[in-house]
Amino acid sequence: MAKDKEFVSDIADIHTNFPQWYTDVVIKTEMVDYGPVKGTMVIRPYGYAVWENIQNYLNKEFKKQGVANAYFPMFIPESFLKREAEHVEGFAPEVAVVTYAGGEDLAEKLIVRPTSETIICEMYSKWIKSYRDLPMKMNQWCNVVRWEKTTRPFLRTSEFLWQEGHTVYDSEQGADNDAKTMMEVYQNCLKNLLAIPTLTGRKTENEKFAGAVATYGMEAIMKDGKCLQAGTTHYLGQNFAKASNIKFLNKDEKLEYGYSSSWGVSTRLIGALVMTHGDERGMRMPPNVAPIQVVIVPIASKAAGVIDKCNEIKTLLENSDIRVKLDDSNNTPGWKFNEYEMKGVPLRLEIGPRDIENGVATAVRRDTHEKSQLNLGDIANLVANLLNEIQSNMLKQAEENMKNAIVETDDFNTMVDQVNAGKVALSYHCGNSECESEIKDKTTIKTRVIHSLDNSHKCIYCGKPSAYRVYFGKQY
Amino acid sequence: MAKDKEFVSDIADIHTNFPQWYTDVVIKTEMVDYGPVKGTMVIRPYGYAVWENIQNYLNKEFKKQGVANAYFPMFIPESFLKREAEHVEGFAPEVAVVTYAGGEDLAEKLIVRPTSETIICEMYSKWIKSYRDLPMKMNQWCNVVRWEKTTRPFLRTSEFLWQEGHTVYDSEQGADNDAKTMMEVYQNCLKNLLAIPTLTGRKTENEKFAGAVATYGMEAIMKDGKCLQAGTTHYLGQNFAKASNIKFLNKDEKLEYGYSSSWGVSTRLIGALVMTHGDERGMRMPPNVAPIQVVIVPIASKAAGVIDKCNEIKTLLENSDIRVKLDDSNNTPGWKFNEYEMKGVPLRLEIGPRDIENGVATAVRRDTHEKSQLNLGDIANLVANLLNEIQSNMLKQAEENMKNAIVETDDFNTMVDQVNAGKVALSYHCGNSECESEIKDKTTIKTRVIHSLDNSHKCIYCGKPSAYRVYFGKQY
Repeated sequence: MAKDKEFVSDIADIHTNFPQWYTDVVIKTEMVDYGPVKGTMVIRPYGYAVWENIQNYLNKEFKKQGVANAYFPMFIPESFLKREAEHVEGFAPEVAVVTYAGGEDLAEKLIVRPTSETIICEMYSKWIKSYRDLPMKMNQWCNVVRWEKTTRPFLRTSEFLWQEGHTVYDSEQGADNDAKTMMEVYQNCLKNLLAIPTLTGRKTENEKFAGAVATYGMEAIMKDGKCLQAGTTHYLGQNFAKASNIKFLNKDEKLEYGYSSSWGVSTRLIGALVMTHGDERGMRMPPNVAPIQVVIVPIASKAAGVIDKCNEIKTLLENSDIRVKLDDSNNTPGWKFNEYEMKGVPLRLEIGPRDIENGVATAVRRDTHEKSQLNLGDIANLVANLLNEIQSNMLKQAEENMKNAIVETDDFNTMVDQVNAGKVALSYHCGNSECESEIKDKTTIKTRVIHSLDNSHKCIYCGKPSAYRVYFGKQY
Repeated sequence: MAKDKEFVSDIADIHTNFPQWYTDVVIKTEMVDYGPVKGTMVIRPYGYAVWENIQNYLNKEFKKQGVANAYFPMFIPESFLKREAEHVEGFAPEVAVVTYAGGEDLAEKLIVRPTSETIICEMYSKWIKSYRDLPMKMNQWCNVVRWEKTTRPFLRTSEFLWQEGHTVYDSEQGADNDAKTMMEVYQNCLKNLLAIPTLTGRKTENEKFAGAVATYGMEAIMKDGKCLQAGTTHYLGQNFAKASNIKFLNKDEKLEYGYSSSWGVSTRLIGALVMTHGDERGMRMPPNVAPIQVVIVPIASKAAGVIDKCNEIKTLLENSDIRVKLDDSNNTPGWKFNEYEMKGVPLRLEIGPRDIENGVATAVRRDTHEKSQLNLGDIANLVANLLNEIQSNMLKQAEENMKNAIVETDDFNTMVDQVNAGKVALSYHCGNSECESEIKDKTTIKTRVIHSLDNSHKCIYCGKPSAYRVYFGKQY
């Protein structure tokens, strides 16, 4: 255990210094590094593999929803951004601007996309003629730039990766349902792939996307009790259709503006994954998204047959589509145990001469530290089962954490104290925009998502009749 | 046939106006559209699906080579680009520059990456300490920007998508072999997936990458006889390692600069695909890369059981991992035949009441226009076999076209005449840089790749002893 301690001291204490713990984990696991330009990040292979697993999951779901992938230009003419009044107000302060290119000053400055509503709607206006062209549903995986003052790897960086889906429907219901359906897709992705439970609901008017009619959000609760907005979907009404002149001939042969939606999740999900599952020893990867699901550590690796047996098991697992790494480097087994625990590999298999003699491998779970002996004759099935168990258990643990973080209260001061103490409060609010702003200005606490419409109570702040129950919390 | 003619007239004549034919095909098949900013393109779903198939193929090959995917920031500090003298000279004229962001002028201007050697090597210099860290091999799929005066969709655009692999080895041989191996990977991708044969070899000193010691290129020959550089790999020697201070402790415990390579292919491959396989009627997609491999067209679709049978066949094919589309729209079968021929779908299945009665589907190949009857009882296997045959045949046709385009000549005027008439010339050259430049200045004809070292002849231009045989040609 001495080694463990020595190792753990490399990472800040999760209980007393959560922010430093986070930075230590994402850097030391080699998921990410700081880029040379302030506020940028390099996504290293161990982090990028998580992103690829998210991409694979979502691409399948998008396809089921009839969404096609495409790619739109990164440079948006400055005039486009200005077309939708709320949109430009929301994004103008944080855009990066190309002013010259090819050795010449540009006649019109180009905005590096912070999001692509304006340029995609411009193209949709060319392509959409009739209700027969609708719904039009496209998605792109790309980089976006939002110049932020305070940045943290994955959570808030000047440039990040995301997907953005954009649709046009022939009716309000169509586009609004799309925003709701995609929120379900996202919520299931977090639950099934990342083992992250979320609170989902509509955002308040104050907190909605710049240019949207309605924004739906999902909030994941981190181990320090802060909320992380893990994804949003927007019903945009006819706002962008009017701004970009997207008109279609409806079934009555009349020209009508389209109804649009957009939705996105980003590489900040990787930050959410770390802060949901990590512990004292570092990262814990849920098996379904883990770049390495199983690490094989040879014990007494120079003993006859050990490395051969490890390779044999590796091949067996690979043939069952299990992502496995055999670490046959010269480092000590103890060093390897620490290394892959820090990296959060869900399952470790130790294979030494005695194990081979007994026809077993020693399995150690990352989530519970439980040890067991797995029969080599049925190793692929046994490992697959264990991985499933770990996935379920990690979701269960995260769900319990979320439940424990939520406090229901009707008292304003209690709400503030509880949120400041690392909880999320569920309280009644009048729905008035100024009332909500006052709470924010006074306490820095914002609403997260609306839990449910409910006018049976009083607003926690102003005492007027409630409009809904809403979550209050601090946010990443 | 009247309909066909009417339809074909929509696309410029491939024989008399190849450039316009190309533009018509890529736009009308909805592979691409022009972006709002001059020189940019929108890759539409039918084009993007081709790119995704290329990505899937290459990601598997990269993995076999031990290459890991990652993501590096798009913004490169201006000072980085200047570190390698030839590199900055090569790229400076065509970069796009961000001068302000977040509402403020930037202290240091940021270059939007035209390629990422400088920023990736900067990170490698942090990560690489010892020979044990080598080789380090990463790849990223991303957008890059090169501000060009004259642009054409896929072939040359201000922004395009590509992958760029970057490695560091502990020896010259390691890195140079890597560049050669990756060229083989690319060549196989073009051959096996895109059915495009290529001429591969080292580029001359005049034509190599800005900052490379050696550049290897693959040239595909388009139907008009012009060459298209379809991919390049570079052995960079210690140039970038010195510029970025990548040093490692070698086995003798001495500090040494690393040896690096880089390699990339881009969305211009989609342009190559069109100009290799397209014909009078539009595009022809090789089955292995076709977004839609089979289109099912119902005949007399309102007759009892036709649509049901079409759906049944569709499911059968999908279950065999065949990419299939059933077009049950209200358009006439004739319109559909034209539409999917233009889009280049390799195989059409017509299913009508008489076919169903006979237990067959009528199959029509896009490559040969051959018709055959396929037994519905074994439809998935029969279709899979036909798709394989079409793939082989399209490669064979392209290989014949390439062979016919090459002219061997020792006479300078013949070389120039032949190249200007749409051929590629294989001739001897002295290898002298000034001699090569003179040819280019005089004729606009450049060398493509070196065929083989050979000092047994005389230079086609200056008459001095030859250094090698080299391909001369016009280029995209």
